[in-house]
Amino acid sequence: MLTAASSPTPFFVLELLGTIAFAVSGGAVAVRAGMDWLGVVVLAVVTAVGGGTIRDLLIGTAPVRWVNQPWPIVAAVATAAVIIVLAHRRPGSTPDTRRAVLVADAAGLAAFTVTGTLICLDAGVPGWVAGVLGVVTGAGGGVLRDVLARERPMVLVSEIYAVAALVGAAVAVVLTEQSVEPVVVRWVSVAVVLAIRLVAVRRQWTLPRFDGTAGP
Amino acid sequence: MLTAASSPTPFFVLELLGTIAFAVSGGAVAVRAGMDWLGVVVLAVVTAVGGGTIRDLLIGTAPVRWVNQPWPIVAAVATAAVIIVLAHRRPGSTPDTRRAVLVADAAGLAAFTVTGTLICLDAGVPGWVAGVLGVVTGAGGGVLRDVLARERPMVLVSEIYAVAALVGAAVAVVLTEQSVEPVVVRWVSVAVVLAIRLVAVRRQWTLPRFDGTAGP
Amino acid sequence: MLTAASSPTPFFVLELLGTIAFAVSGGAVAVRAGMDWLGVVVLAVVTAVGGGTIRDLLIGTAPVRWVNQPWPIVAAVATAAVIIVLAHRRPGSTPDTRRAVLVADAAGLAAFTVTGTLICLDAGVPGWVAGVLGVVTGAGGGVLRDVLARERPMVLVSEIYAVAALVGAAVAVVLTEQSVEPVVVRWVSVAVVLAIRLVAVRRQWTLPRFDGTAGP
Repeated sequence: MLTAASSPTPFFVLELLGTIAFAVSGGAVAVRAGMDWLGVVVLAVVTAVGGGTIRDLLIGTAPVRWVNQPWPIVAAVATAAVIIVLAHRRPGSTPDTRRAVLVADAAGLAAFTVTGTLICLDAGVPGWVAGVLGVVTGAGGGVLRDVLARERPMVLVSEIYAVAALVGAAVAVVLTEQSVEPVVVRWVSVAVVLAIRLVAVRRQWTLPRFDGTAGP
Repeated sequence: MLTAASSPTPFFVLELLGTIAFAVSGGAVAVRAGMDWLGVVVLAVVTAVGGGTIRDLLIGTAPVRWVNQPWPIVAAVATAAVIIVLAHRRPGSTPDTRRAVLVADAAGLAAFTVTGTLICLDAGVPGWVAGVLGVVTGAGGGVLRDVLARERPMVLVSEIYAVAALVGAAVAVVLTEQSVEPVVVRWVSVAVVLAIRLVAVRRQWTLPRFDGTAGP
Repeated sequence: MLTAASSPTPFFVLELLGTIAFAVSGGAVAVRAGMDWLGVVVLAVVTAVGGGTIRDLLIGTAPVRWVNQPWPIVAAVATAAVIIVLAHRRPGSTPDTRRAVLVADAAGLAAFTVTGTLICLDAGVPGWVAGVLGVVTGAGGGVLRDVLARERPMVLVSEIYAVAALVGAAVAVVLTEQSVEPVVVRWVSVAVVLAIRLVAVRRQWTLPRFDGTAGP
């Protein structure tokens, strides 16, 4: 029944999209923080492969997948190279880096949350735990990026970040358990995460916060 | 001889106590930092399962234990829910969050240092290394909490934090090697950590610090 | 062909040097940050074993190597003890802590990048991925040190840091694949990393940075 992750090809597309999106977000944060070229490369790679690496470690995939299938490293470095060229071509013309990071991060979150969930279901992890591990896969790279760049982790402070990932992961788990066509599971779940997260960013939706003034 | 960890039931009690205590400390830090609901849940879960997860990774327990026995996730989320309700009911009435964090953190440190040490002894790790891994188990969740919340890690700056854990772990190792009754080993070691840490907090005991004025 | 890592003895010398060097850098950062004795020990140990631990986790060496061969822990604690004694003997006489950290960190980076690369080649990891993992081994401990001490990670902001490690790792991979004598591979690669990094520190070489004024 849990065959959603068994066909590698469309999965690859989704992972490649997520890798590039997170590499963009990592590289853009590095540019904004005034790092040098190598800093851009390092932060792009860490953001792109961080979430999947944490998932592999937690479920016991050893060595982690990029050691023997290193294409995500290649994709992230190539993305970083493009960012470096662009950032040099148009210095000062990046007033919307912050928005670019938010959108790219949302795409990476969507792609990796869904692939992470499906990989874990495929590995026999029980349903809702697979969803939690999907969220870890989706959010992990961004957490490492923010910790290294000394920014506040988006998952802790951005409204509706973990909510978007959780809902998407739940959709992936439920649809997979209902034996829905894998390719449908994938793209519907991705669309759910992306829609919630992007609307939340645009409308600045928030969950209640605790700031000393919270409460009824 | 190393049977201290072989009876699961009292072990479970100790781990449940540690899980709830660390979830309280993580949730309270999130409330204090003005995070939203999901931030409270994320920080509670990370603090509660972080130390044990690091230990499982280091000794090669794969997948890590909460993947197949996810009760600590459930307990941490439930604890976070209670914190959220309480924080909304009495906003402003939390002047002693800092003290609550210190006490809950001490309880979590005690429970996890001891269970971590005993789990490692049971897994065949040589004595004093098991103690070190016990300290890692006890301190790891709090370190992740502090790094994510961008506070200074308590283990590095709080007086007598690692000392309390180290002494308790040593007591657990020595008593276990002396074939003392497992249940006695457990609670005596926990009491040792808790006593040292709480007295240190209350009396503000310190180890010598380096601040440019240190020295004779 | 890939036998560079098969003779343990000279490897041990290199790893011991790297361990002590990184323990010095971790301990010195702790002293500078005004931590207490245990903070110095914790930061020395984490810096010294952090990179190798991350590498072991990524390539699936479980338990990680220091669990069953704990000499790096012993070496790091002993180094921390010496630092504590020295820092007490001559308080105020440490105006060049920052320089000491840079030099010790460079030595640790060189030793661990090379041993990490060779250990991974020996484990069958494909060439350039072994180089990446070597850089992770070399830079990982310092990243953990900087994150815990809440400093900006040297690998992201220090000029020519990752470059030095990457070039040294590449030299190690190429020479090993050319069947050069293992002992020659080791010391030549170490010398390459150390030379690039130290000259970069002294001359304040930089890669282009993005600070809003970058570009032609």
